[in-house]
Amino acid sequence: MSETPAGRHQAGSSGRPLPMTSAEEGLPAEVTVYEVGARDGLQNEQVVVPVEVKAEMVTRLHAAGLPAVEATSFVHPKWVPQLADAAELMGLLVERLGDAARRMPVLVPNERGLDRALDLGLEHVAVFGSATETFAQRNLNRSYDEQFAMFEPTVRRAREAGLTVRGYLSMCFGDPWEGAVPLDQVVRAGVRLLEMGAGQLSLGDTIGVGTAGHVKALVAAFAEAGVGVDRLAMHFHDTYGQALANTHAALQAGITTFDASAGGLGGCPYARSATGNLATEDLLWMLQGLGVRTGVDLDAVVATSAWMAGQLGRPSPSAVVRALAEPGGLAESGA
Amino acid sequence: MSETPAGRHQAGSSGRPLPMTSAEEGLPAEVTVYEVGARDGLQNEQVVVPVEVKAEMVTRLHAAGLPAVEATSFVHPKWVPQLADAAELMGLLVERLGDAARRMPVLVPNERGLDRALDLGLEHVAVFGSATETFAQRNLNRSYDEQFAMFEPTVRRAREAGLTVRGYLSMCFGDPWEGAVPLDQVVRAGVRLLEMGAGQLSLGDTIGVGTAGHVKALVAAFAEAGVGVDRLAMHFHDTYGQALANTHAALQAGITTFDASAGGLGGCPYARSATGNLATEDLLWMLQGLGVRTGVDLDAVVATSAWMAGQLGRPSPSAVVRALAEPGGLAESGA
Repeated sequence: MSETPAGRHQAGSSGRPLPMTSAEEGLPAEVTVYEVGARDGLQNEQVVVPVEVKAEMVTRLHAAGLPAVEATSFVHPKWVPQLADAAELMGLLVERLGDAARRMPVLVPNERGLDRALDLGLEHVAVFGSATETFAQRNLNRSYDEQFAMFEPTVRRAREAGLTVRGYLSMCFGDPWEGAVPLDQVVRAGVRLLEMGAGQLSLGDTIGVGTAGHVKALVAAFAEAGVGVDRLAMHFHDTYGQALANTHAALQAGITTFDASAGGLGGCPYARSATGNLATEDLLWMLQGLGVRTGVDLDAVVATSAWMAGQLGRPSPSAVVRALAEPGGLAESGA
Repeated sequence: MSETPAGRHQAGSSGRPLPMTSAEEGLPAEVTVYEVGARDGLQNEQVVVPVEVKAEMVTRLHAAGLPAVEATSFVHPKWVPQLADAAELMGLLVERLGDAARRMPVLVPNERGLDRALDLGLEHVAVFGSATETFAQRNLNRSYDEQFAMFEPTVRRAREAGLTVRGYLSMCFGDPWEGAVPLDQVVRAGVRLLEMGAGQLSLGDTIGVGTAGHVKALVAAFAEAGVGVDRLAMHFHDTYGQALANTHAALQAGITTFDASAGGLGGCPYARSATGNLATEDLLWMLQGLGVRTGVDLDAVVATSAWMAGQLGRPSPSAVVRALAEPGGLAESGA
């Protein structure tokens, strides 16, 4: 092959191919991509990333048009050393971006975390719960019921202070110890968070075992309990390659908020078990091809992830990043 | 975490998790998985695999219940050195499996290839064409029209001898030189192969740029031309992570034959541009989760791919294989 493939009819600004748009009936016209790479992605990375690099990453993702960039977690450094710089990072971001940084969501595991967010004048927080007993005990060191007791004052005080609260719910499809998680169990846990004052639920397939029919069944179960798609976000992991097929099903079910991690941060391309989040770029490729608007510049996210892969010293797990990023090009230009 | 996650409610024979079944309305009850790893997968692998290993691989995939295992291609060794052992491989397989080996499809690029298939008493052959002018020239060294002139006597003589013929059509979504490929151009090329005597078309997204809406539009365009889903197979590549989302859309459009490559053979987990076929295991995981029957033993395919990854000296690109295969376990047991 003597020529460089260029995609004459449709190509990005750098001559790289772009997905071809072919809308599908019945899908939402527009969705919100909720970027979790800086928090959920980095907290699963072994290499501790300098705070300046994190600030640059978050700034670039924000500049790429991502409407929600979850910046960090005010978790105790003992549990997640990678995020021990949470206050410093938010300080840097407020310096650079002002109010835009104060509008970036952060995770607050408990009231102490909330206090730190309130001190900085942040406007959006998230709590992180489990739909299963076993994972509540293992991840939060609390029983299923005790986790809600911990969230209750956190959510109440956040709401009283005028903040919005997102409720993450993990293990909504399968749990490594409990197996398949019954739909009504997930709905009950979600409703508890909503009744407490959470505005949105992010339903996580933490171990990536769900498939498309399961996604539709879960959305239907929430609808039966009076919880509409406007309150739900989907948080898929690509452990078994299902994240985009599940996203396709969720779009058909009317879901309009999807969590994703730039470059698939948090997964490892070498690991036997790549438990990472769905890559933002792979999600954007599909949405763009389906004609679903996001307001996000795919090229800019790819460039950011290629640069971050360099910082982490290894390729990105994202298929789109690996296919589009070129050595000496986006990855190193910082453009 | 002190315990090993085991998936109490649903686990495979080895205690590993299985997808949780949650059927989706309107999908086919049963589909055919057409295994292309030994031909399309291996022809893209750099390491030349010994013929005995290939025979073992094909035998194991057949034993796993895969109803169609495309074994090799009678292509000139100059073009694909990996498949220079095609006749020897088929001889070994006939020795071991008898008529079952004669029922395994093989690719025949032209009449000389067909002669070799006829000599061995094989019953199913496939030809490989392009939906675009540029790729016909680059892959076949023939113009778009000249390729059909080459296929015509091949297909005619195969049919006269009582064989079935599958027509592969590559670049059905996007072409690296020509960009988006118009639907009617793909349909015209497909209809020419069908009118020649091909029984089934395999529509390839060779560079993996298609998305779900495009898949449905292409199936609809064939239907308008009088070609029903019973004549169509889908052949997706995971270059941009879209293969399973596209499969989900194709299932909804009524497609019941899907090409896949065991372990994602042909792609490279390290490459920037992993252009490999959809992994059979990732496809089986989704179909099993959707309650769509295939008759294939997922565990047996995973074990085969893990063993092949050892033969090739690198991890499998399949998410499911990487998640399920354990060191010292399936990969090395040969079980």
